[in-house]
Amino acid sequence: MAQLAVYPVGNYTFGSKPPKFEKDSSVATRMDRLKDKYSREGLRRSVDAVLVVHEHGHPHLLVLQMGASFFKLPGGRLRPGEDETEGLLRKMTGLLAPPADTMRPDWRVADLLGCWWRPNFENMMYPYCPPHIARPKEQRRIFLVALPERCYLSVPKNMRLVAVPLFEVYDNIARYGPVISAIPALLSRFNLSLVGRAVPSLVAGLAAAQAVAQQAVAQQQQQQQQQQLVQYGQQQPTAAGAGQQAPLQPQKAGITVSLSGVAAPQPQQQQQAQPMQTHYQQDDDLLVDFDA
Amino acid sequence: MAQLAVYPVGNYTFGSKPPKFEKDSSVATRMDRLKDKYSREGLRRSVDAVLVVHEHGHPHLLVLQMGASFFKLPGGRLRPGEDETEGLLRKMTGLLAPPADTMRPDWRVADLLGCWWRPNFENMMYPYCPPHIARPKEQRRIFLVALPERCYLSVPKNMRLVAVPLFEVYDNIARYGPVISAIPALLSRFNLSLVGRAVPSLVAGLAAAQAVAQQAVAQQQQQQQQQQLVQYGQQQPTAAGAGQQAPLQPQKAGITVSLSGVAAPQPQQQQQAQPMQTHYQQDDDLLVDFDA
Repeated sequence: MAQLAVYPVGNYTFGSKPPKFEKDSSVATRMDRLKDKYSREGLRRSVDAVLVVHEHGHPHLLVLQMGASFFKLPGGRLRPGEDETEGLLRKMTGLLAPPADTMRPDWRVADLLGCWWRPNFENMMYPYCPPHIARPKEQRRIFLVALPERCYLSVPKNMRLVAVPLFEVYDNIARYGPVISAIPALLSRFNLSLVGRAVPSLVAGLAAAQAVAQQAVAQQQQQQQQQQLVQYGQQQPTAAGAGQQAPLQPQKAGITVSLSGVAAPQPQQQQQAQPMQTHYQQDDDLLVDFDA
Repeated sequence: MAQLAVYPVGNYTFGSKPPKFEKDSSVATRMDRLKDKYSREGLRRSVDAVLVVHEHGHPHLLVLQMGASFFKLPGGRLRPGEDETEGLLRKMTGLLAPPADTMRPDWRVADLLGCWWRPNFENMMYPYCPPHIARPKEQRRIFLVALPERCYLSVPKNMRLVAVPLFEVYDNIARYGPVISAIPALLSRFNLSLVGRAVPSLVAGLAAAQAVAQQAVAQQQQQQQQQQLVQYGQQQPTAAGAGQQAPLQPQKAGITVSLSGVAAPQPQQQQQAQPMQTHYQQDDDLLVDFDA
């Protein structure tokens, strides 16, 4: 079984660089450009990179987000005749490497994960070439790229780099499209070794213990605040008033977080500490803090 | 890019053998049995085989069907300590090999395609182990199995072996479940070499030419029939009457078919010849003709 070492998201340092704008403002203009290119160069060959980190004991994909709901893998079109590995590294460098050449991450194109086909000048792609299509318009090959243990990454200012857990993209074509949402299945043949990972039961135990502790702290603070209110005569301590008090923001369960977050389908909510999933929602704000 | 030789479905000969019944009559009893086994043996290890043939220039999966809507891959549970390859061959032999040992197909377990996890004693499986699950209940590994160029296969009488095109299972969790519907993506990294395949444009051309020819034959027959009707005075030849005439059943576009068919979501319809997809509906009846 193929093995891949996966490091904590906290091992990576994220900065920003000048924006890289998409060439097309709409799907229609994009298809027109594909048509034009196709008439001159034939089959479009594209390559994309799957970069994996871990957080809370679960693998996450590094995905570029543009606007509220457009997600893409780092990658792009190969030049005619260009080697796939070289082309992918060129695209990744343009999108994610810091401007200084000396800081270029030591990433390594590892395995081919899948191959997608665009049969017509339309948005849909499939993991096969449909039977009646003799001349597909684009072939997109998806590679697993091994990240070094630590490195700097720079993200164009008009994009965000988000770490999305596998369980969030799985079977979620509506939000992430067919290529990204298939990645959990494509990765499943790899033994992902989550380096520096806290033992899951330990994490859950810590989070549970912390939730109890935080509740105690929150109650204490509520009592203190209510006592203050009482002292100033502004409010009588009532059960209803105590209920309206927002609970404290739970702290991370012993895991360092520098970049994370899912642009989650649910609206962001403040919740009392729960072992795992609430962290993603709470970390959402960290997404915009790239300009370190 | 890994290569796999894929042969026409017509290369294989299908027979039947005594039925092999499922151990459980419902999901609930199945989960009870899993629970019981788990308490004695721990993690359940299962293995499944992906067998690929081709037809109409498109790869098809060989899938076992029970009843109207239950599909599964050939495979099953490993015995404690059993080797994966040996166990998969044992399961495949039980499900698909002819009873005579001398006729056992020379199949070869090729590549690991994916790995699915059952976190709880529930029906859902995922291509990852969810983060808060320290002790998953089942691990199911999916292997690509290379079929020989020709062989005999015997199918238990209570099952049907169906050849389902990739485009039919893709993104069709509702009908085929999460494991089978992910196979097109898992296979996409392979260069499937469709041995003995007609060139797609040739097939399409043949089908189109045949459609035209059949339409001509149908019109001729209609005219003859209407002439007869006129002779016997039963009906006046009218345009409306000609329209009600059912078109001829189109013949196969020069491709030999011995087993095929999709239990297609649409009701079976008689249609005028169209290049590809109607064949699957028309071949549906062949499914039950195993007892060769």
